[in-house]
Amino acid sequence: MYIGIDLGGTNIAAGLVTDNGELKFQSSLPTKPERGSEDVIKDVIRIIKITVSNIPDNGEELSGIGIGIPGYIISNTDNLVYCVNLGWENVDLKRNIEREFDLPVYIENDAKAAALAEFMVGSLKGTRNSLLITLGTGVGGGIIVNGQLYRGANGEASEIGHMIVGENFYNCNCGKNGCLETFASATALIKYTKKLINDNNEDTIIMDRLKGNLDLLEAKVIIECAQQGDALSLKVVDRFIHYLVIGISNLVNILDPELIALGGGVSKSGGYLLELIDRNIASNDSFRNVRNRRIITAALGNEAGIVGAAMLCKYMNL
Amino acid sequence: MYIGIDLGGTNIAAGLVTDNGELKFQSSLPTKPERGSEDVIKDVIRIIKITVSNIPDNGEELSGIGIGIPGYIISNTDNLVYCVNLGWENVDLKRNIEREFDLPVYIENDAKAAALAEFMVGSLKGTRNSLLITLGTGVGGGIIVNGQLYRGANGEASEIGHMIVGENFYNCNCGKNGCLETFASATALIKYTKKLINDNNEDTIIMDRLKGNLDLLEAKVIIECAQQGDALSLKVVDRFIHYLVIGISNLVNILDPELIALGGGVSKSGGYLLELIDRNIASNDSFRNVRNRRIITAALGNEAGIVGAAMLCKYMNL
Repeated sequence: MYIGIDLGGTNIAAGLVTDNGELKFQSSLPTKPERGSEDVIKDVIRIIKITVSNIPDNGEELSGIGIGIPGYIISNTDNLVYCVNLGWENVDLKRNIEREFDLPVYIENDAKAAALAEFMVGSLKGTRNSLLITLGTGVGGGIIVNGQLYRGANGEASEIGHMIVGENFYNCNCGKNGCLETFASATALIKYTKKLINDNNEDTIIMDRLKGNLDLLEAKVIIECAQQGDALSLKVVDRFIHYLVIGISNLVNILDPELIALGGGVSKSGGYLLELIDRNIASNDSFRNVRNRRIITAALGNEAGIVGAAMLCKYMNL
Repeated sequence: MYIGIDLGGTNIAAGLVTDNGELKFQSSLPTKPERGSEDVIKDVIRIIKITVSNIPDNGEELSGIGIGIPGYIISNTDNLVYCVNLGWENVDLKRNIEREFDLPVYIENDAKAAALAEFMVGSLKGTRNSLLITLGTGVGGGIIVNGQLYRGANGEASEIGHMIVGENFYNCNCGKNGCLETFASATALIKYTKKLINDNNEDTIIMDRLKGNLDLLEAKVIIECAQQGDALSLKVVDRFIHYLVIGISNLVNILDPELIALGGGVSKSGGYLLELIDRNIASNDSFRNVRNRRIITAALGNEAGIVGAAMLCKYMNL
């Protein structure tokens, strides 16, 4: 039995996870990162205690705590973490948690933890070379290489969302222009839709759906309106697919994976998106090399973060 | 002692290589791929025999033959090779060579073999996660992951040149638009220079250098004219550097290497190009993540192909 913590910018989610990745108990607290790292860590400790108190009374023992963070462990430091979204620099998360519990604590970047979950108990199980692409507020990913989670020289590998794939009308948070994340995330769908509506005043059923309040726009609405044949939404989704396929093609050329799983919020429109991706690849002879790769939706959904964090405890002791 | 063969579209180059990568004897024959695979293989056998007859009489034994090919081994076949530049499909190179010599024969993609050479006896020696980018007629590469040559699920990994990094005025040989190879190869330098001269009739010292005959244009000339301050050449080299840095940045984001070596013909202008790359990265705050990576020129030059092919024999038995 392990505890997995998915420490996000909005919520601290925790779960009790079995050896084969089953989630037995789940809870969450708001992160409120503006409080600073000390108060956030107090709540991480609090939610671990809540989780511990919910361990079923069947004799199974807790053997580790894994934490997925929206950042990375700074190389050549003793586990200090850096999380731009939380405003954390050189935070000693590991020692702070270990001090409270007599258990090993493992920390990993959240997207890598999600990929580990898919690899150990989800859609990438049994693969040797594969990858998870998460399409959410941003675009992230995790790479499995020779049957192992790939971390890179400094633990900063698989920043798939910041691969430049073209030129875009707005810059990425990272400062660059043309990052995959600015074309193929929920944020990208929303920004481009707003641009089309504001620039050209094009007719779209989106405005009816939102009762005229564009501030309520979500990626889900755009995809649903595209499925209903709305011209503007189709244009937005087409562009999304175009650049997503470029991103996938680049990853295929560099990594030659046997399997690619799509996760994150946007991938919930699974079948529809996969069909559009397949059609885009098939209609474009130049993406020959991508054609033979299996592209699937990820298995674990929102829980990949918690399960992956927990699975770190198992993976690090394999 | 090993024999390394660099089977290219123009020449079949062979060498006698010591255990630590020293090249003791070298020869070459024209490939003339239009003859078909049987005749080319006869010449591969002939050049191996020439090489064997030049083994110094010091008691050292030949323990293997390695061959670098401009293509790849088709997965799930017994070593059949596919080389688009040679017009080869399903060619049983390995068995044809083994039949002639009582020695193990190893085959690998030429760019991966070059990366292996740099990793085992050249600029990437001692690294765990690193990569070679070859800037020649095309753009290729090889990736070292966790101290091993990375092949991918089907041996098709590290096709760095076909990563899409923007939109270009001409399509890549592969059919796609925007491949790194169409921005950052010798061919790309030449095509863009010709375009600028033909489209705008801009003044350039290149025309004097070539005595007005643009057909003689080589990448080297463009880089030399840029170094002399020629405005048109500088524009061409700037664009080359701009997209090369995007390519490097993408690879850093995906692979997080500790070291990046630039090889291939274009990299012979080493110091000048490295300085331009560094300046481009430094002046562009958005390439922060690239700044701490060491980018160097490869050590083995043209010989990387032969040495890498030979080193396959050693690597496969490590």
